[in-house]
Amino acid sequence: MQQRIINPHDLAFQLFELHRTEDVLQYDRYADHSRETLEAALDLALKVAAEEFAPHARLVDEEEPTFENGRVEMRPEVKRALDVLRETGLMAAGQDYELGGMQLPAAVAQMCVGLLKGANVGTQGYAGLTIAAANLILAHGSEEQKERYARPMLAGRFFGTMCLTEPHAGSSLGDLKTRAEPAGDGSYRLKGNKIFISAGDHELSKNIVHMVLGRLPDAPAGVKGISLFLVPKFLVNDDGSLGERNDVALAGLIHKMGYRGTTSTMLNFGEKDGAIGYLVGEPHKGLAAMFHMMNEARIGVGLGAVMLGYTGYLHALDYARDRKQGRPIGEKDPNTGQVPLTRHADIRRMLLTQKAYVEGGLSLCLEGARLVDEKKFADSDAAKAEAAGLLDLLTPLIKSWPSQFCLEANSLAIQVHGGYGYTREYPVEQFYRDNRLNPIHEGTHGIQGMDLLGRKVMQADGQHYRALLKRIRRTIDEALAVPSLADNAVRLDRALAQLVQATDAINVVRVSGATERALANASLYLEAFGHTVVGWLWLRQAQVALTGIDNGGPQPEAFYRGKLRACDYFARYELPRVSSLAGLLAEVDTTALDMTESEF
Amino acid sequence: MQQRIINPHDLAFQLFELHRTEDVLQYDRYADHSRETLEAALDLALKVAAEEFAPHARLVDEEEPTFENGRVEMRPEVKRALDVLRETGLMAAGQDYELGGMQLPAAVAQMCVGLLKGANVGTQGYAGLTIAAANLILAHGSEEQKERYARPMLAGRFFGTMCLTEPHAGSSLGDLKTRAEPAGDGSYRLKGNKIFISAGDHELSKNIVHMVLGRLPDAPAGVKGISLFLVPKFLVNDDGSLGERNDVALAGLIHKMGYRGTTSTMLNFGEKDGAIGYLVGEPHKGLAAMFHMMNEARIGVGLGAVMLGYTGYLHALDYARDRKQGRPIGEKDPNTGQVPLTRHADIRRMLLTQKAYVEGGLSLCLEGARLVDEKKFADSDAAKAEAAGLLDLLTPLIKSWPSQFCLEANSLAIQVHGGYGYTREYPVEQFYRDNRLNPIHEGTHGIQGMDLLGRKVMQADGQHYRALLKRIRRTIDEALAVPSLADNAVRLDRALAQLVQATDAINVVRVSGATERALANASLYLEAFGHTVVGWLWLRQAQVALTGIDNGGPQPEAFYRGKLRACDYFARYELPRVSSLAGLLAEVDTTALDMTESEF
Repeated sequence: MQQRIINPHDLAFQLFELHRTEDVLQYDRYADHSRETLEAALDLALKVAAEEFAPHARLVDEEEPTFENGRVEMRPEVKRALDVLRETGLMAAGQDYELGGMQLPAAVAQMCVGLLKGANVGTQGYAGLTIAAANLILAHGSEEQKERYARPMLAGRFFGTMCLTEPHAGSSLGDLKTRAEPAGDGSYRLKGNKIFISAGDHELSKNIVHMVLGRLPDAPAGVKGISLFLVPKFLVNDDGSLGERNDVALAGLIHKMGYRGTTSTMLNFGEKDGAIGYLVGEPHKGLAAMFHMMNEARIGVGLGAVMLGYTGYLHALDYARDRKQGRPIGEKDPNTGQVPLTRHADIRRMLLTQKAYVEGGLSLCLEGARLVDEKKFADSDAAKAEAAGLLDLLTPLIKSWPSQFCLEANSLAIQVHGGYGYTREYPVEQFYRDNRLNPIHEGTHGIQGMDLLGRKVMQADGQHYRALLKRIRRTIDEALAVPSLADNAVRLDRALAQLVQATDAINVVRVSGATERALANASLYLEAFGHTVVGWLWLRQAQVALTGIDNGGPQPEAFYRGKLRACDYFARYELPRVSSLAGLLAEVDTTALDMTESEF
Repeated sequence: MQQRIINPHDLAFQLFELHRTEDVLQYDRYADHSRETLEAALDLALKVAAEEFAPHARLVDEEEPTFENGRVEMRPEVKRALDVLRETGLMAAGQDYELGGMQLPAAVAQMCVGLLKGANVGTQGYAGLTIAAANLILAHGSEEQKERYARPMLAGRFFGTMCLTEPHAGSSLGDLKTRAEPAGDGSYRLKGNKIFISAGDHELSKNIVHMVLGRLPDAPAGVKGISLFLVPKFLVNDDGSLGERNDVALAGLIHKMGYRGTTSTMLNFGEKDGAIGYLVGEPHKGLAAMFHMMNEARIGVGLGAVMLGYTGYLHALDYARDRKQGRPIGEKDPNTGQVPLTRHADIRRMLLTQKAYVEGGLSLCLEGARLVDEKKFADSDAAKAEAAGLLDLLTPLIKSWPSQFCLEANSLAIQVHGGYGYTREYPVEQFYRDNRLNPIHEGTHGIQGMDLLGRKVMQADGQHYRALLKRIRRTIDEALAVPSLADNAVRLDRALAQLVQATDAINVVRVSGATERALANASLYLEAFGHTVVGWLWLRQAQVALTGIDNGGPQPEAFYRGKLRACDYFARYELPRVSSLAGLLAEVDTTALDMTESEF
């Protein structure tokens, strides 16, 4: 199977050597699984990704969905791919057996989705949103809602959406205005306008279940007055058959720079008598319900960013190996043949940077996925609590770091291709356009930075933060004892010390009450923190690779040596970024904050 | 005139306060000019840019040129805008009066082009290439070639192209294969294939003059065997009328991520009997002739990158001022109204970063343009030589720094817009796609890095490099004496010292003969050097702004204060990058160089 989605050695290394996914099979939930069943699921996902998803990725970019006669029309390949996804059972890979799922560990389930995203992020979007919406119903809905809506969604007969954003409010969800009036029969009538609703309308499934944030008549202002409603495109009868069309109208499509395969819509709820909706969970607790699902959704975004970076890297690597151009420095004879691009130092640097970003980002996402399982199933409550805390802390990094640096990897993949990379005749420019969404949706960098510095670092009186530092220091201590890793450990130790110093300086300002000043550079703090954590994960990858070399591990020796080299690269080329950021963070610089509007 | 191309205060500040463009009016060539004539030319260019170029910038992106019945078809707005450009005399603004030009100083002439690029880089491309090709003929062609081809090009009746790249050779020009056989009548017959030929075919002008690199039959291999030929699309009779169609065929169009308005073509020369071409300059000296024009061409690329960043910044600023979203930190009452985006620290930071990049980049390009004039017209040979040397040294920075950081500014402009920025309903995503070309064409970052570190820094035994250091140190010394600038001067001094240390360390390795090792991180050296030079230019901007405040200069005080703030920003947020890069450069790190192919 020809695929440029992932390096299979790296997939095996990360899941089974680094993150030891087999360990979670001790949990009762995964008792039926073995290394073999996990690998079978991954093989299947990779096969579907390579054979059903990747081939039409360019096509849905070139011929994006259109709005014709009130309907969304799109290429038929999308439906065919999603049909295969449903038929193979991959649609609900992480769900309970009882719900038609494969009950896979979180890391493997996320990875199955990640492979599809790397192959064709546009087509995967329809399935991804459906699962996200179904998960909301499963977590907060009534038994009847689960039966009537979530089951057909997991089976792929209904698709789903998340309807949060409104035109005037954007990320400020507390300002949303969609109103829900009780109809007297237990249902509600919704009126409001939503924007940027991915997969908001299409003909891919028999029905679409919208999960809509709105306000009840007695709702308090702000985020404390938001409730969650389930609003189907077609009403569903008691026997599961479809009834009338609900009062949800497609107002138009939004045309994006990339990610074009997933149609983005404006939806009007209640243009006539009000869209019929059903309350999910408690009144006024809608935002909490939504955020309850956020950790996993944000891991999904981070992993999507990684996989777009990853496929770009593999394309660039293949191109650089095949393409002959120029001569080595010092070769003066123009009669000698041209050499492959990989012979040039700058090309190697750009490839190694991509490798460090995408494999580092993958590590980070899988660390998060591992914590998802630990927090639910670990042996003790203390272990569960620690995992939950670490996951909370890491989530903004998992969402944002790959969105920033794997996008940069996509830019480098273009650069390796030279002029060809800038053309639509090669795929790397599309990965770059597609990936540019990831720093925006599911909370921008700015929002992730505020979440990390304004909430997570301080959460539980800084306990999660300290737990993470402890884990990082443990790795540093171990690595210091290994001569070939000691230098990198010293570099990570320096970065960590600078990050801690910056955190402490910021906390002094925060404690003084100057919150705005303390948080002014939260986005840069996010970046420095992310680089430190990925530096830690690279050191761990190097530890495991060294073990692999020493003990003749399952991957080729050159692969393990590449891991050591990438760890060197990250420590030497990337960790200095932490210093330069930590310096100004420790000064709690307010140059930007103090800029007045008239000075721009 | 509503325009979001440039801040007029900044344009006046940079040209007349910072770079003192009036000083060059002392040169005989500019004797007829005054501040008023320069401003009139700039006003005209800005008017044409805003009224004729900007309005169809999105249109030529959405409906890019197509290949129909052997012809290139495009939107009629392109021809209309170029007609206006010709009629206003702006086409040849920098050329001699005698050639129909305005004989403007280089900085003003470049700026006129820059304004057009900021408005619509795709449409400007046709004019830009024509002038570049005409300049080649003026510099190296025969009188007859100038009369028959260059004059109609400057008048906008013929357009031009630069045909360098071939599919198998890319940047490795020494490997190009196009052959030119003498026809016995003084002309040549060319056969070969060229790729990425911008504006290679169209119906915008009566004729297209291709400037083609090829090889004579007796040519030595490599770059020393390349000659330059003039190959018209239609032969030109002695009376200037058009004759037969030449044997140049459009093989196809290339579809790009951005910059779509300028069609990119594959051209086949000599599919039949050979394309009739004329030697320009000496045999085998074609590459030198081409490179002779490179400084100005590269300033043009750098300035184009700046102007795309600049228009993105102004769009983001307007959006952030208008768009209300969220509340200040600490405002807990959701019943208060939402505030403009500019109220948020992270938005201000992103706007200030854009300002620092685009205004810093503009400064850099205009520094280069000033040197272009000095090198030609300065009072003494020594001054001319120093200007020429500095220009050679700065050229790779002028080409690459804006291509990297003003592209980053475009990414931040998207981020300020949030989800809207990612849609094609707003213009910022197009600027980002358009600007992504600039790190590639006219020599990639990798090539610029090798040019800087491998050639320019060492040129004339390091004399140009030392001359630049001297100028930077002079500014630092002056600023150290001014209390409000001293801290920034100290920071620049530190960055400069680290750059010098890195340069010295690299030179030790180079002198030892390990050239490949010495140059392994040339691209990162380029980045560190560029940041240092832009830091210097920001300190100079701050000096001038301070004078403006003290003496009640021509710009509003808030504008000058913004310059001081942006200088603070650059010194505090950006110069630390130099440290982190200089560290690994000083170590002459070879992690990437040593990576073997099997380890990826």
